[in-house]
Amino acid sequence: MIKSPHFEQNPSMYSFLPIFYLAWADAVLTPSEINNLQKVIEDQKWLSDVERQYLITYLDPKSPPSPRELKSWQTEIRKATTGLDVDKNYSLLDIGLTVAEYHGASHKDNSFQITRASLVVLEEVLGVISSEAIYHFRSKSHQVKSIKSSEKAAFDTQKMVLLLDGDQHEIIKRVKTVISDPAFAYVDESNLEEYREQVLKWCKLLADQGFGAMAYPKAYGGGGDMRQYFTIMETLSYHDLSLVIKFGVQFGLWGMSLYFLGTEKHHKKYLEGIGTLETPGCFAMTETGHGSNVKGLETTATYDRKSGNLVINTPHDYACKEYIGNAAVHGQKATVFAKLIIDEVDYGVNAFVVTLRDKKGRLSKGVRIEDCGRKMGLNGVDNGKIWFDQVEIPYDDMLDRFASIDSKGDFQSSITSDNRRFFTMLGTLVGGRIGIPRSGLSAMKSGLTIATKYANKRKQFGPENGEEIPILNYRTHQRRLMPLLAQTYALHFALRYLTDRFINRTEDDMQEIEALAAGLKSFTTWQTTATLQMCREACGGKGYLSENRIDRLKNDSDIYTTFEGDNTVLMQLVAKSRLSEFKKEFADINLFGALGYIVNQAKVGLVEMNPITVRNTDADHLLDFEFYLSAFRFRERDVLTSAARRIKKHLDAGMDSFDAFNQTQNHMVDVGIAYAERVVLEQFVEAVRAVEDPQLLRSLTRLCQLFALTQIEKNKGWYLEHDYMVGSKTKAIRRMVNQLCLEVREESVALVDAFDIPESCLGAQILQD
Amino acid sequence: MIKSPHFEQNPSMYSFLPIFYLAWADAVLTPSEINNLQKVIEDQKWLSDVERQYLITYLDPKSPPSPRELKSWQTEIRKATTGLDVDKNYSLLDIGLTVAEYHGASHKDNSFQITRASLVVLEEVLGVISSEAIYHFRSKSHQVKSIKSSEKAAFDTQKMVLLLDGDQHEIIKRVKTVISDPAFAYVDESNLEEYREQVLKWCKLLADQGFGAMAYPKAYGGGGDMRQYFTIMETLSYHDLSLVIKFGVQFGLWGMSLYFLGTEKHHKKYLEGIGTLETPGCFAMTETGHGSNVKGLETTATYDRKSGNLVINTPHDYACKEYIGNAAVHGQKATVFAKLIIDEVDYGVNAFVVTLRDKKGRLSKGVRIEDCGRKMGLNGVDNGKIWFDQVEIPYDDMLDRFASIDSKGDFQSSITSDNRRFFTMLGTLVGGRIGIPRSGLSAMKSGLTIATKYANKRKQFGPENGEEIPILNYRTHQRRLMPLLAQTYALHFALRYLTDRFINRTEDDMQEIEALAAGLKSFTTWQTTATLQMCREACGGKGYLSENRIDRLKNDSDIYTTFEGDNTVLMQLVAKSRLSEFKKEFADINLFGALGYIVNQAKVGLVEMNPITVRNTDADHLLDFEFYLSAFRFRERDVLTSAARRIKKHLDAGMDSFDAFNQTQNHMVDVGIAYAERVVLEQFVEAVRAVEDPQLLRSLTRLCQLFALTQIEKNKGWYLEHDYMVGSKTKAIRRMVNQLCLEVREESVALVDAFDIPESCLGAQILQD
Repeated sequence: MIKSPHFEQNPSMYSFLPIFYLAWADAVLTPSEINNLQKVIEDQKWLSDVERQYLITYLDPKSPPSPRELKSWQTEIRKATTGLDVDKNYSLLDIGLTVAEYHGASHKDNSFQITRASLVVLEEVLGVISSEAIYHFRSKSHQVKSIKSSEKAAFDTQKMVLLLDGDQHEIIKRVKTVISDPAFAYVDESNLEEYREQVLKWCKLLADQGFGAMAYPKAYGGGGDMRQYFTIMETLSYHDLSLVIKFGVQFGLWGMSLYFLGTEKHHKKYLEGIGTLETPGCFAMTETGHGSNVKGLETTATYDRKSGNLVINTPHDYACKEYIGNAAVHGQKATVFAKLIIDEVDYGVNAFVVTLRDKKGRLSKGVRIEDCGRKMGLNGVDNGKIWFDQVEIPYDDMLDRFASIDSKGDFQSSITSDNRRFFTMLGTLVGGRIGIPRSGLSAMKSGLTIATKYANKRKQFGPENGEEIPILNYRTHQRRLMPLLAQTYALHFALRYLTDRFINRTEDDMQEIEALAAGLKSFTTWQTTATLQMCREACGGKGYLSENRIDRLKNDSDIYTTFEGDNTVLMQLVAKSRLSEFKKEFADINLFGALGYIVNQAKVGLVEMNPITVRNTDADHLLDFEFYLSAFRFRERDVLTSAARRIKKHLDAGMDSFDAFNQTQNHMVDVGIAYAERVVLEQFVEAVRAVEDPQLLRSLTRLCQLFALTQIEKNKGWYLEHDYMVGSKTKAIRRMVNQLCLEVREESVALVDAFDIPESCLGAQILQD
Repeated sequence: MIKSPHFEQNPSMYSFLPIFYLAWADAVLTPSEINNLQKVIEDQKWLSDVERQYLITYLDPKSPPSPRELKSWQTEIRKATTGLDVDKNYSLLDIGLTVAEYHGASHKDNSFQITRASLVVLEEVLGVISSEAIYHFRSKSHQVKSIKSSEKAAFDTQKMVLLLDGDQHEIIKRVKTVISDPAFAYVDESNLEEYREQVLKWCKLLADQGFGAMAYPKAYGGGGDMRQYFTIMETLSYHDLSLVIKFGVQFGLWGMSLYFLGTEKHHKKYLEGIGTLETPGCFAMTETGHGSNVKGLETTATYDRKSGNLVINTPHDYACKEYIGNAAVHGQKATVFAKLIIDEVDYGVNAFVVTLRDKKGRLSKGVRIEDCGRKMGLNGVDNGKIWFDQVEIPYDDMLDRFASIDSKGDFQSSITSDNRRFFTMLGTLVGGRIGIPRSGLSAMKSGLTIATKYANKRKQFGPENGEEIPILNYRTHQRRLMPLLAQTYALHFALRYLTDRFINRTEDDMQEIEALAAGLKSFTTWQTTATLQMCREACGGKGYLSENRIDRLKNDSDIYTTFEGDNTVLMQLVAKSRLSEFKKEFADINLFGALGYIVNQAKVGLVEMNPITVRNTDADHLLDFEFYLSAFRFRERDVLTSAARRIKKHLDAGMDSFDAFNQTQNHMVDVGIAYAERVVLEQFVEAVRAVEDPQLLRSLTRLCQLFALTQIEKNKGWYLEHDYMVGSKTKAIRRMVNQLCLEVREESVALVDAFDIPESCLGAQILQD
């Protein structure tokens, strides 16, 4: 009850109460607002002059209602409007009338006429959405559409798990069982020494399971299954990335280099001990002075004709081996890459087994090792620097699959060119560029699982007086996470394809597979970094706490963009390979000749663009796989030919080829990216088309659409520049991406559940809360 | 000498040696290559049949030359060509003739005619760039253009330092002197406890210098200089970000909340002890359940009429205060935000001083604190969770500048609306949104200094047989770092402007300044994260080692995008504020009314686009500040009006306003970003235009051009969609950005030197090596 004789005498005046309440509750009344309200009151002919004057006093900024008074108005209005349905639309007029009637006014006799026209003015003045006025007076929450968007997956999660796992389901289950064992409980990582020991212990447990030797021949205690080895790497990555890298250094880099670069005598001597982790070892290629440019390594291995031995030497401080995993503490042996020198002739980089420490950890004579210390991540791996001071090794410890020293002390190789030989050796080690992106894939899956599930239950903000809604119902949050989820699915299939190609390789395939691995490694690991960064931000402060593990995932995987080849450098190699590949029928590795060929081809090659397609914004078209395939392929081809054209133009003008490539370097990186995007899309499309279960098919189709359209949207500047699409079409694509984000959001928890990451591995406190 | 009677007899045959060398040195000969070479040899009429047959045996893939033989050819050719100038262009023919002559052949008599036409075929077959053939035979390095691009700054670094420092030069120097003192030597951070104690000690040293109290009134031992306080925050950020945040929590959040929300009695009681760090304290606003949506805080402060005291209580587990800096170990007091309840009426969120611990660190009765534990970064700050179980505080410890309880126990406030009062309180704390981006700015400057200087000296790859070149001479590396350098300069001036606006604020300005702070805080901190990520990657493996500090800079500053307001949420607030601002003349804070106004305005408002400008690719135009200002403003205005149009369309169709804003949320974030970009550009342009020194002016002009064009390039999809530019123009902009990157690269070391970061603070090992 308002304590006023005027209101008592003329309860119709109560109809203004909701207006006054709203005027004071959210705002400071500005002079223009006061003027307008005053005008409305003055227009009410059914009020007496005194009553009008009285009502106008309610608008005086010099004597506003007290906070308590304001609250009493609200209570008053709430009481009066209890009967109104919160989900129906009521205007301020409706509410005002209801309050007045509650106090005894009768409006059936038309005794006053607050006109709808006045009302519209009022609402505009107050900035109130008429139909929502009622929200301010109700404690019961009304329904907004945004709250309804929530989890309702239409597919069977277990079927999706089986589809993703494919023929690797059994080994994945086995690995998951092992890493879920209490022996693999996470440890505190702040103590470097303890953490490194723990990681070594874990590696030993995995070796005991036969996981480490999985790819080695059965004759040497191995499992003879390279595909399963990669699956193991990927699955272990749900647990701890230091463990994965330590595992990869031992069984992949150290073991595989010995296996691929050595011959039977080395396999017999070493392989079993590597597989059981009896002989921990390193892969010592990178030097401080030469990281990306490995061809320029400076460590030497000099053949001593007298003893028949080889002498490994670090010629100067910056030629030391750096970042070598397993070197700082545990490694006993190492595959060392060094230039072979015979009679002062340099035969290029070759590989040698060097003993760093004995079983008791005592360093070999002439070997000096320094700890690389704390890193951004991967602190469970003991990286070190190694210097060799005239370290003698037996002749037999030269890994001699591709080159050897004969009994006369002469260098022998079936590959004449030093360059070619070195890159052939490197080519056999391409597996590292498969293991790393697959590990990155798992890290993304972990991050997205944490961020998606958190966003699905974390509620923040909501409509006026309404319930708070899950943050994943916000469009910005969907835009941040859903395209990344789609992309992770895409990469899953692309990396499976890469693995298949590698497993089934022939010699003729190798150049293509190397480019494929380099391209997908770079593309995937860049996305890993970006995805985990987004997951961190999407979880807000919770994402920053170590207990929720995103910081570790991000920091551990951050180096993936650098090791096994810096991504920017790799993408240029991919581009060069693509330039040659393009002209495969004519010559295999002839880059410069290829340029001319490509440029000539381009003049006749490109398909005319269809003016209808360029402006087609039909949903059917925007959701059509064929549209994506054409667009991605067009872009790949065009970026490639224009890069070739630019390089050739520079060369024709007499520019040094080194400069010509440098001038075109950014463009070359784009060639690599466009290639990777096209491959990922093709493999996703192919995988989806093979799905039989209709529910899975529908969900995966949508993910593929979201992936493809997000990429096109990212490149829309390029497509518009090239008149491949017009603005109305790219705008339609933006809307379609928003729509797909909304739809994928509804299945998002099921989609991350299908990654099937063991609870113990996720280890995020926020998912327990 | 080739041991062959044929060569001895006819030394002209030596002219094929360079061709054979190149054929084997880099490649495996393919069948088509062999065919082509064979054909060329068969065409040489001056050779006998026997000689031709003999030469063809050199092409047999079944008996390639041995590696040693290949090397001997190279030695042979090198000897013969010593006299040729490495920098001149020689064809394979020239080289072949030189080798033949060296062995006694005489070509003056035209006794043989390897035709230039044959040569072209050969070169095409081998994929050799004719003019570069000589590189393969020379150990002396030739000059490439890429190596020449290096440091040659045309301005006086010290003058740039003074320009950047402006009137804050003295205080900056003082702070740098203090943090360069051995007492501030970096410590090992792996031990959480020790690190936190060290950071506290550092804070104490800074307090002793009067830095902490710099913004407080002189009456309470302060310096009375808010501008210098911000400068101190920014300069300290060169040292350790944990220190900055600990400093900011104590003197900024805890001290300023007491200063701005309290009244004289609080200032007298507390301010001096805060400024000296005698009373460490916290700012306890965020709760587990309510982070971004602070309005929804659930902690209560209930007025007890009997005792006249207030009782602070955490109603349930998730309503605990979380992430509270200084809480886990050191804080004795806290400004606690809680809903004030009097007689069961909720008067909204107010602030209260609560004692957490006594001087000896013993917790107050009813206070429970948990350590937030290890975080992604900022581990020198002791964040904690706080629960209050009916904790009684004296009436006087309510901070009563904006609201109080009168002697009758009634709530009193000059601000009627709870909402409005709360946001007025928050508004006074906007300083935090200035300090954080300024700290982020310093972190970017540190990262870019490390990455740029490293890239300028780190050499990797080079031309064939040539010297390696600095990685900063690579176009991709320039593209990665130079735009970020330009942007950092841009943000320097923009944040100086923000500070000025805040220092000189009037009440009328506040809404605009809040939007400005929120927009620049978000824009800057997103860039901080992106910039440091890029610096990490640009330094490769070195960037991953903690000794080079980029990991710390990145991880410590990572939370800047979340705290003091989550960026995505802030950008939506900015957008809403912009929508109202737009219509300032009509009503101050009336969002919904503004929508209609804006939409109507838009119909007539936008300037017609000039068809010449749309396709103007002249350098003068592309480098013109006025072009940038028009483009940025056009975009800002258009994004804003189209957002208004979309929201209004939804509302007119009867959509709930909450849903309407959610539908448009991504668009709203764009409004905020476009606004921030425009402000940053304007401030950069204004700062540059005020520069008098011609050298500085030239350098800064170029940076401003690079910043502006990089932003336009980033948004080129948008500009093309809106027909503001055509593809030929955006392509020209891409080329111009490349060119500017090259030019800025030449001054880049001087440009980072001008940040003038103390060596001891940079602390990156790679800069010492």
